[in-house]
Amino acid sequence: MDYYEKALEMHAQHHGKIEVVSKVPVKTRDDLSTAYTPGVAQPCRAIAQNPADAYTYTSKGNLVAVVSNGTAVLGLGNIGAAASQPVMEGKAILFKEFGGVDAFPICLDTQDPEKVVEAVRMIAPVFGGINLEDIASPACFTIEETLERELDIPVFHDDQHGTAIVVTAALLNALRVVNKDIGSIRVVLNGPGAAGTAIIKMLLAAGVKDVIACDENGILYKERGVGIADHKAMLCDITNLGGMRGTLADAIVGADVFIGVSVGGALKPEMVRTMAKDPIVFAMANPVPEITPEEAKAAGVRVMGTGRSDYPNQINNVLAFPGVFKGALQVRSRDINTAMKVAAAHAIADLVRDDERSEEYIIPGAFDPRVADAVAQAVARAARETGVARL
Amino acid sequence: MDYYEKALEMHAQHHGKIEVVSKVPVKTRDDLSTAYTPGVAQPCRAIAQNPADAYTYTSKGNLVAVVSNGTAVLGLGNIGAAASQPVMEGKAILFKEFGGVDAFPICLDTQDPEKVVEAVRMIAPVFGGINLEDIASPACFTIEETLERELDIPVFHDDQHGTAIVVTAALLNALRVVNKDIGSIRVVLNGPGAAGTAIIKMLLAAGVKDVIACDENGILYKERGVGIADHKAMLCDITNLGGMRGTLADAIVGADVFIGVSVGGALKPEMVRTMAKDPIVFAMANPVPEITPEEAKAAGVRVMGTGRSDYPNQINNVLAFPGVFKGALQVRSRDINTAMKVAAAHAIADLVRDDERSEEYIIPGAFDPRVADAVAQAVARAARETGVARL
Repeated sequence: MDYYEKALEMHAQHHGKIEVVSKVPVKTRDDLSTAYTPGVAQPCRAIAQNPADAYTYTSKGNLVAVVSNGTAVLGLGNIGAAASQPVMEGKAILFKEFGGVDAFPICLDTQDPEKVVEAVRMIAPVFGGINLEDIASPACFTIEETLERELDIPVFHDDQHGTAIVVTAALLNALRVVNKDIGSIRVVLNGPGAAGTAIIKMLLAAGVKDVIACDENGILYKERGVGIADHKAMLCDITNLGGMRGTLADAIVGADVFIGVSVGGALKPEMVRTMAKDPIVFAMANPVPEITPEEAKAAGVRVMGTGRSDYPNQINNVLAFPGVFKGALQVRSRDINTAMKVAAAHAIADLVRDDERSEEYIIPGAFDPRVADAVAQAVARAARETGVARL
Repeated sequence: MDYYEKALEMHAQHHGKIEVVSKVPVKTRDDLSTAYTPGVAQPCRAIAQNPADAYTYTSKGNLVAVVSNGTAVLGLGNIGAAASQPVMEGKAILFKEFGGVDAFPICLDTQDPEKVVEAVRMIAPVFGGINLEDIASPACFTIEETLERELDIPVFHDDQHGTAIVVTAALLNALRVVNKDIGSIRVVLNGPGAAGTAIIKMLLAAGVKDVIACDENGILYKERGVGIADHKAMLCDITNLGGMRGTLADAIVGADVFIGVSVGGALKPEMVRTMAKDPIVFAMANPVPEITPEEAKAAGVRVMGTGRSDYPNQINNVLAFPGVFKGALQVRSRDINTAMKVAAAHAIADLVRDDERSEEYIIPGAFDPRVADAVAQAVARAARETGVARL
């Protein structure tokens, strides 16, 4: 893929992708006395007396930390903090370009989840929100839960919830295309890691009743939850209420929807042929999807999405996180809760009008300029309705 | 002081002073594939294989963390991390405006020096240098020493060394004005805290032989070093080689130079009258100096400097830190060592030409556009000469 060469060249030319600039003039002695000493003492005093004044007098209210320890970077695995920086800088500029949100890479040189929590707790004063990124499962779950509990600013693991929001949005419109009701479909999800777990939880919150999860050992069922990783034990409880056992091939028979966050080639055309009428397939393994759109179509798939930009219906997190944080920050939300995430998914889906929705167009493009504001408004509204907004 | 009102208004209007922007275009699908997935994987791989590639493919090489835990902010004392943010944002924009160096505020919510060290160690991968700021003494000494030892990027406590560099620069030119030799003067320093300690060490490195330090209990002498804070014990060893005892008033008799980093009004006119011919006084307590320039002149002071912008000869750190880091980063220095700091002082002093140097002009103004580059060049050269440069 020649994007690799282009990326090397571009990154070397600019020496990275971010810069930190002033929003205020610093050209005269007077400017200096206002932005720095002696004037700056007064905003400091104000915040010391009333911590909420940080939102008024500093950049905190529009500033997000993009936090990673580099333990699960893209498809590259555990490459460590320093090597994760290009991704985190990339994320930071997407926050700014798509959502108008300032974001800064915090790449933590530790593999210990408790140290990640401690570091984020210490740096938190400067930030209005924390975006966790590319942190391996299952550490990502405990890190996120602990920080959500301890910090008074929103914490959002994008690999989980960003993906879940966009998958849910795509599913809402795919169901409109095939004219099925969300409450009566069966979904099979392959790859119950960080993203898979969040997708399942969100689909259940959005109205799906019947979800089967499969890992490399086949279908998850209640008894498999004993003695395994926490998040999988939880999935064993909330999915597969009928107690089905077997392989992915068994699970897929009669299913309406397949969602893959697993490995290239995992979904065979012969499996697709056993699905219910008008199959919906989101094959998001990268760069090689669980099944190619060509194979899928040939096997009868009606609506197909992937993680790739060179096919229609790209399931792209950039549709979610800039607007999610923009909305959460606008109302100084304490949290980014499930209601806010579901609201974001509906906002994304509803941008595709009835008369333009089709098998090839269930989700807006990454550069659709309406997305971030629509998501932000929906998220802000949901924050207010659920009582987590402070404005 | 009406800068206070102006500062509140300005900070509230802009919601702080920094923003994080992209150095690269993010307008097309192609841009996205180069700056983010899939292309970004390639710089990540390169850094994973060769950590030094972080300087090529990320913003690290021009990025400084402005780190504080808010324990000694300006004259405000221990106001905590959140309330220190306006100062750290201010510092960040000065780095950019004066030195072209990107800087980001890291305000650490901890009062424990070991936790500060741990946090900085964890966030270090993203940064090319660490600027410590407004951390209380004596914690600032151990924090700086530990980080210098453990990190392979330069660590610089500006309250110590920035002040020391600019004081030294001012002294070099003041001595030219009064035609005295640095090796034969006696300096009395009042207030041996963080800045005072660094000033003393640097003056000794720059050629001063005779320094007397005074604290609130009077002159430091060898026996006073027993059982007290480490940095003061060290000062008791390296200053006052004659073993003088007494008060500040005793120390000042016959002294050539008074340097105050203490409290307003500490230097009385009657003390000044006991100094050697052509007294030099740097009274840097803020906002009220140890002696006002008016009182000092009336008492016979020949060359006077303060920390204030409304008098001549402002001893302003902004003359040092932007260029110091610019130079250190240019050559990827491992350290900012004493030779580099002394070189910076000489570079600042030498910008004042012989034909323009006078009692009222011993140091360039804060907005002199030549300063940062002159300092950077001198610092980079000294880094190379002392073997700490990697480029």
